[in-house]
Amino acid sequence: MLKGGYMGKVLRVNLSTQKIRVEDLSEEIAKDFLGGAGFGIKYLSDEVPGNIDPLGEENKLIFAPGPLSGTSAPCASRMALTTKSPLTGAVGMSLSGGHFPVELKFAGYDILIIEGKSEKPVYININDDKVTIRKAEKIWGMDTVDTQLLIKHELKEQNTRIACIGPAGENLSKMASIINERRAFGRKGVGAVMGSKNLKAIAVRGTKVVPIAKKDEFNKARSTMLAAMKASPVLYPEFSKLGTPMVVDVTSALGIFPSENYRTTGEKDYTKGIGAEASEATNIASEPCYGCPVGCSQLKLARGNSKYTGALSDPEYETFYSFGGQTGVDNLDSIIAADQICDRLGIDTMSVGVTIGFAMELFENGLLTLEDTKGIDLKFGNHEAMVDLLKEIAYRREGLGALLCDGTKILSETIGRGSEKYAMHVKGLEFPAYDPRGAKAHGLNYATSYTGADHNRGYAFQEIFGMPIPKPYDRFTIEGKGALTKWNQDTRCATTDCPTMCGFLMDMALPDIALENTANMVNSVSGLNLTPDDIFKIGERVNNIAKVFNITAGFTREDDTFPERILTEPIKEGTAKGHYISSEDLNTMLDEYYEARSWTLEGIPTIEKLEELGIGYIHEKIKSLEVSE
Amino acid sequence: MLKGGYMGKVLRVNLSTQKIRVEDLSEEIAKDFLGGAGFGIKYLSDEVPGNIDPLGEENKLIFAPGPLSGTSAPCASRMALTTKSPLTGAVGMSLSGGHFPVELKFAGYDILIIEGKSEKPVYININDDKVTIRKAEKIWGMDTVDTQLLIKHELKEQNTRIACIGPAGENLSKMASIINERRAFGRKGVGAVMGSKNLKAIAVRGTKVVPIAKKDEFNKARSTMLAAMKASPVLYPEFSKLGTPMVVDVTSALGIFPSENYRTTGEKDYTKGIGAEASEATNIASEPCYGCPVGCSQLKLARGNSKYTGALSDPEYETFYSFGGQTGVDNLDSIIAADQICDRLGIDTMSVGVTIGFAMELFENGLLTLEDTKGIDLKFGNHEAMVDLLKEIAYRREGLGALLCDGTKILSETIGRGSEKYAMHVKGLEFPAYDPRGAKAHGLNYATSYTGADHNRGYAFQEIFGMPIPKPYDRFTIEGKGALTKWNQDTRCATTDCPTMCGFLMDMALPDIALENTANMVNSVSGLNLTPDDIFKIGERVNNIAKVFNITAGFTREDDTFPERILTEPIKEGTAKGHYISSEDLNTMLDEYYEARSWTLEGIPTIEKLEELGIGYIHEKIKSLEVSE
Repeated sequence: MLKGGYMGKVLRVNLSTQKIRVEDLSEEIAKDFLGGAGFGIKYLSDEVPGNIDPLGEENKLIFAPGPLSGTSAPCASRMALTTKSPLTGAVGMSLSGGHFPVELKFAGYDILIIEGKSEKPVYININDDKVTIRKAEKIWGMDTVDTQLLIKHELKEQNTRIACIGPAGENLSKMASIINERRAFGRKGVGAVMGSKNLKAIAVRGTKVVPIAKKDEFNKARSTMLAAMKASPVLYPEFSKLGTPMVVDVTSALGIFPSENYRTTGEKDYTKGIGAEASEATNIASEPCYGCPVGCSQLKLARGNSKYTGALSDPEYETFYSFGGQTGVDNLDSIIAADQICDRLGIDTMSVGVTIGFAMELFENGLLTLEDTKGIDLKFGNHEAMVDLLKEIAYRREGLGALLCDGTKILSETIGRGSEKYAMHVKGLEFPAYDPRGAKAHGLNYATSYTGADHNRGYAFQEIFGMPIPKPYDRFTIEGKGALTKWNQDTRCATTDCPTMCGFLMDMALPDIALENTANMVNSVSGLNLTPDDIFKIGERVNNIAKVFNITAGFTREDDTFPERILTEPIKEGTAKGHYISSEDLNTMLDEYYEARSWTLEGIPTIEKLEELGIGYIHEKIKSLEVSE
Repeated sequence: MLKGGYMGKVLRVNLSTQKIRVEDLSEEIAKDFLGGAGFGIKYLSDEVPGNIDPLGEENKLIFAPGPLSGTSAPCASRMALTTKSPLTGAVGMSLSGGHFPVELKFAGYDILIIEGKSEKPVYININDDKVTIRKAEKIWGMDTVDTQLLIKHELKEQNTRIACIGPAGENLSKMASIINERRAFGRKGVGAVMGSKNLKAIAVRGTKVVPIAKKDEFNKARSTMLAAMKASPVLYPEFSKLGTPMVVDVTSALGIFPSENYRTTGEKDYTKGIGAEASEATNIASEPCYGCPVGCSQLKLARGNSKYTGALSDPEYETFYSFGGQTGVDNLDSIIAADQICDRLGIDTMSVGVTIGFAMELFENGLLTLEDTKGIDLKFGNHEAMVDLLKEIAYRREGLGALLCDGTKILSETIGRGSEKYAMHVKGLEFPAYDPRGAKAHGLNYATSYTGADHNRGYAFQEIFGMPIPKPYDRFTIEGKGALTKWNQDTRCATTDCPTMCGFLMDMALPDIALENTANMVNSVSGLNLTPDDIFKIGERVNNIAKVFNITAGFTREDDTFPERILTEPIKEGTAKGHYISSEDLNTMLDEYYEARSWTLEGIPTIEKLEELGIGYIHEKIKSLEVSE
């Protein structure tokens, strides 16, 4: 019997049959997968075949907060959304914070599973035990701000929390996001899955309280955690005051802040135009997630005298990169405007910015012509073209819009002619804001993460922030990076993606106590009795299940790689000058990584490893695949 | 003792001294002025000298709903805002609906008076009896949508109702509006007065109930009113389904839908592109004001494949004119987009559209050159230029933005060179959407209304909708139009602006019972005992006080006039072809109007008339003026 943390209920909404069902959450699943990504990937693996069309009726959307969400645990108001990604074809797991995640707990649910496909546009309204599917024809076509306002108006409930898609999701852009207030389930095209189901929005209002199993222990664990956070020089004042954009200065110093689609890293000094100091000057308010004492999210107002004046948004570091260095732009106001437009249109700032930067390089290389761009001078640094393109893309408009609408990989496949070399993605997921050539474990994580080039699935803070945990590492060498990447991935999954706590705790603030802290917090809230090692194993378990899903989706060792630029072009300037990751080095790291994971050299989990993790049953999926081949 | 309808309290907030005071509302003022515009003009007249700078510290903002607001009376959820207008220099009275007005009643107040000027940006937060002045530095610069979202977030109160200014008000545009949700205190530049006081917003949340003095009588009066409304063929289904944009068809048939700054009325058939049928196709939802069973406000979504796709707003008929015929535009999506942008920037759609149309004629006449427009081809019909100009204007940007920022009158004064002939305004207030040359009482109201060319202060429904109340009138003749205009102005003021009920009841639905209905509703809710004639007298009283204020502000008979085009150019085409209002005809109508009002031929209220209305004391103001001259 689950004694706390969990509400004990799984809500299942089938849009094809219009049936709504409430199921019990089993204690075993809670113990083995904790919540969030763990729940999502477990249910995805059990219920969705790997080889289905991500935009077909068979795909599912699995929303899951964690056991701490909705309690007074700090930094735990997050939720994982798991689905098969239309952008990558692999597991698409995307996390978001804000207030929507905890509201699902308040309504009484640990998991929301959406399946099937509605014939006509609808939205789901969850009000505690009352769940209805409502018509959304009239909302279809609206941006995400208007959608949220209109649904609140229609429901006469200003306190409902809403996650919704914008035009990008409706138009099935593989970069479409799902937006709630100023937060996004941003990556992996999850918005297109909602769009494919004709699901415009999910509104949630709840009045229940999340029970705490052991109140005294919980308060003690909470105090310990808050004290550790307070002692962290990274969180206060730095992160609380500046938010993630301060990382522009960190990676610029490391020579790995990407510039112009990775062709000139280090040449331009972006710290001047869009670095921490310039960024801080635009801050006007902190907008913390539910229950967060840090409040890293900094709302920024464009106050310059430009066409962007008055734009308001809270771009994170990755958006500073995708609409900044990646496109050769160092105009802060245009980044704020682009971020706001992306949120309104419901499109991922990272993927779309990287794709535009890629198109800019194709334009400068002559692989895209003035005829292709319909006269737009799509050179690096053209922030007006960048901002104007967003609407074209979100609406999949004829010309550049349609060409860029499905992201970097499909753009390179459409263009061909050697463009693949400059297509900065792994498995279709666009690169994050760290040049892997100057941070090799960070890079190996891009190559091996189950979601594609995803910094958040195994962030190598050892290389980026120089933290010697579990021990010091040289960011330029490849030694030990296989084992390190496995450790980073499993720990991240176990302490962040499943519980569901904020990633910054693991990466920046408390990496040394992350596993212990997670165990203390989860045990006290739930009454479970997990050791730090049990917690770690959950991370490993989830990474293995995800890997098996991807194998059944058709991925092989060949896909655990980089675009050719990373493998052949050394960084040209700056403190990481001369570094790259040769194919040989990549292979060495991969071998070591698979070995550390006890996988075969083809990157396939062994039956022994799966059984050790208590998930031997999924080995059947790999076996049946071998048979069918 | 007031027994119902009124909350009995006046809230006074002084932004210079930061003092907040609550005063009693006197029964006498309630009885003599009812509420809304009556309260506003009474307090303005008593407390604000006519000759002050409207953007100076001495001006006040007086918000007043009516006795029926917040009760279950239909169509009474409105509020008047009275101030000295920076656009006209006359009484600036602007009405708005939605939910903000009733919330002030729920908080316990009949009137909110804002005086003085804050040193730094602030907003006022009213939460029942708790009223605070809060810092707004960080919100300054935001558009009205973001402002409302941010204040709700900051106050942790999603149910608060907020009226605020956007960049236009901050930049003291004399066309600036005040926005609450999708509603505007639109006209007369009231937003600039808020801006001049460094007041960004007013947030109101109330939990009180508006008392009803005589419940049985109130229910009976309410049933009678609802039955009359239901029987009206204009309200149902027409108005409820189509909203005000249907009037495009009405005035087009009358040949008085203005086209291209009134130079070619009737030439183009706007009913095709932006008429009732085309307009209805864009409707997606009705957004009624509080307690309104009609719901004329129709939310429209731009679904065409254009740069405006996804724009969402609820433009009224007047906006169809100002961004439609007036500018020669018949593109519906651009009107929806322009309306939404105006709401976000906080600028009056009517004044700004008319001013842009005026600039277009100046451009076509060569009075504005390509150099002036910085290369913009500002010809009639250029909807892209029209939409793009809005931001330039709201931010008072160098060039066209600054030139157009303060409206038609100031633009014509700046340009000179004979442009005044085409400057379509009276007393600085831009023309509404009815060419007065084909509706002469409607026109006489433009010339004489205390707010300038304001259709809503004395709407001649006899001419526009052909209603024979109090008797039939020929719209082309001038006979009897002086007396009719007085009757329309006083009745409108008495049954709409003071009680505060929706103007459509008077003009379109229930003009025959308007006075009686108002008396029944007001008496039953308040316990007062007013006859229909008492009600009418309130309208006359308020119009007289307003006139005296304007006289002290410097207005004379010379200002009760039209731009030269109306006086000399006959309408060129259509069913009103050949008609105009000669100076002689205007003078005849004016004489008759002043006579009907018992004013001198200079348009000055006599002591006898003022004493008859119980406001003899204000004659002192005129006398002291004569002395000082």
